[in-house]
Amino acid sequence: MKNNFIIMALFLILLGCSQQQKEKSKDNEEIVEKELSHDELMASVLPKAHNIKTIGVLVYDGVNSLDVFGPRYILSQIMGAKTQLIALKLGNVTSVTGIEFVPDTTIDQVNSLDVLVIPGGFKGTIEAAYDKEVQDWIRKIDKTTTYTTSVCTGAWILGSTGLLKGKKATTNWFRAKEMLAKYGAKFTGKRYTKDGKYWTSAGVTAGMDMSLALLEEIVGRNYAEGVMLDVEYDPFPPFEGGSPEKTTPEVLQFMTTMYAAGVDPIIAKLEKEKPEVTSK
Amino acid sequence: MKNNFIIMALFLILLGCSQQQKEKSKDNEEIVEKELSHDELMASVLPKAHNIKTIGVLVYDGVNSLDVFGPRYILSQIMGAKTQLIALKLGNVTSVTGIEFVPDTTIDQVNSLDVLVIPGGFKGTIEAAYDKEVQDWIRKIDKTTTYTTSVCTGAWILGSTGLLKGKKATTNWFRAKEMLAKYGAKFTGKRYTKDGKYWTSAGVTAGMDMSLALLEEIVGRNYAEGVMLDVEYDPFPPFEGGSPEKTTPEVLQFMTTMYAAGVDPIIAKLEKEKPEVTSK
Repeated sequence: MKNNFIIMALFLILLGCSQQQKEKSKDNEEIVEKELSHDELMASVLPKAHNIKTIGVLVYDGVNSLDVFGPRYILSQIMGAKTQLIALKLGNVTSVTGIEFVPDTTIDQVNSLDVLVIPGGFKGTIEAAYDKEVQDWIRKIDKTTTYTTSVCTGAWILGSTGLLKGKKATTNWFRAKEMLAKYGAKFTGKRYTKDGKYWTSAGVTAGMDMSLALLEEIVGRNYAEGVMLDVEYDPFPPFEGGSPEKTTPEVLQFMTTMYAAGVDPIIAKLEKEKPEVTSK
Repeated sequence: MKNNFIIMALFLILLGCSQQQKEKSKDNEEIVEKELSHDELMASVLPKAHNIKTIGVLVYDGVNSLDVFGPRYILSQIMGAKTQLIALKLGNVTSVTGIEFVPDTTIDQVNSLDVLVIPGGFKGTIEAAYDKEVQDWIRKIDKTTTYTTSVCTGAWILGSTGLLKGKKATTNWFRAKEMLAKYGAKFTGKRYTKDGKYWTSAGVTAGMDMSLALLEEIVGRNYAEGVMLDVEYDPFPPFEGGSPEKTTPEVLQFMTTMYAAGVDPIIAKLEKEKPEVTSK
């Protein structure tokens, strides 16, 4: 429950402070356009009934920190659900840019989840997509989930399990169509895509958009809007970019060449070492 | 240097792979509109010369994880600079939603920085704004910085040092004008605001917009666009919200009441215990 403690704690305080709220309405006039009674307020903003109790974000060395912490922040606001960072093995995890953090548990301790989030990254992501133990765990968990989701190149891991076969999906921009085709999935080019219980998002920051959409589906629009205000998510990119279409051609060429130079040798090595895993 | 290892490592690979790149241009036709020579590519995308060598993000128990990890990810892509998470004391830090992570160093080990980032949060943030040791450290570091910045309620901490007096600034939406006025600053209502070397951002996710703008200023537009594509930052919020103006009135009332119920007792307690610190 520690993950939801602010919302929950403040919520409990709020339940007992309708009097205080009324006394404050004058001070809040500037921003509060229409003052509801305490009961009306509760009824309109309380999350709707849901069955989501356990949310797990898979983490591993080399995971992208924003792929993890964007969804982790947003989904951990679901009241009544416990959100955990689930590592492949015991010990701290280090993200692709060098952030060391402490996971909550490990895959051998987790046998079911209502929501599974598979984040992407770089080398560690590709390795996970050729790791039979990771794939088996994801397939086992998927049998229990209400939503199985991925962020960025997390779709490469999810795809490697065979679970995206015949599905519409999205992923990080780099070789998106080709990588999803490899796993039998059809690239939509969207910021996030739902195909039944399989939700996938484009690269890194798209995980936040997907998580907010998932939050809206699970707890309802008003509560999700509260969380959106909590993270003040009214984005204002300082310049144009962020997708292949909006990026200056030479920058796109640079990034594509750089990614290819990093990714190709790793895939080539793994395809040689573990060809059986890629035949899924 | 660990923070930049992907960009740097791949960059070095790229320097030696112009031949490979030319061989690949056919495969990349779909997304590469205009193929530049290796030298042209380098010249157009390489970061411009800069003097930024040390970047520090202040972290403390109760900090907002996205306030930290958004800017941390983006700013750590500055080639030649070292980005560190700097804690108030030894030991792991736990974010406001319960993420435990390992800082790189502590404030007593850091005497100068080129870029200081002060993230916000909730209880821990308010306490830091009444902590003379924190304020003294920030004032000391500020004497050495090229940029002193804050994210979200991090402006409350920065403001408490007196450094925002007479400045234009922005902060988290909750009581923004009132909180900045308390510290002698003028609230701009913008997503991020620059007043000389003092850059401040609105709540949580606004730290990413500010960091991208700062990145553009430091390393130039093309390199910053590369990082923007790396995080695929082409945001698509699934529904309207994220600012007081765009939020449904009852949700705004709910969040305002909830925040006030959480914040007021903490401020009241600290104002009583440490009134001398607030007189800055």
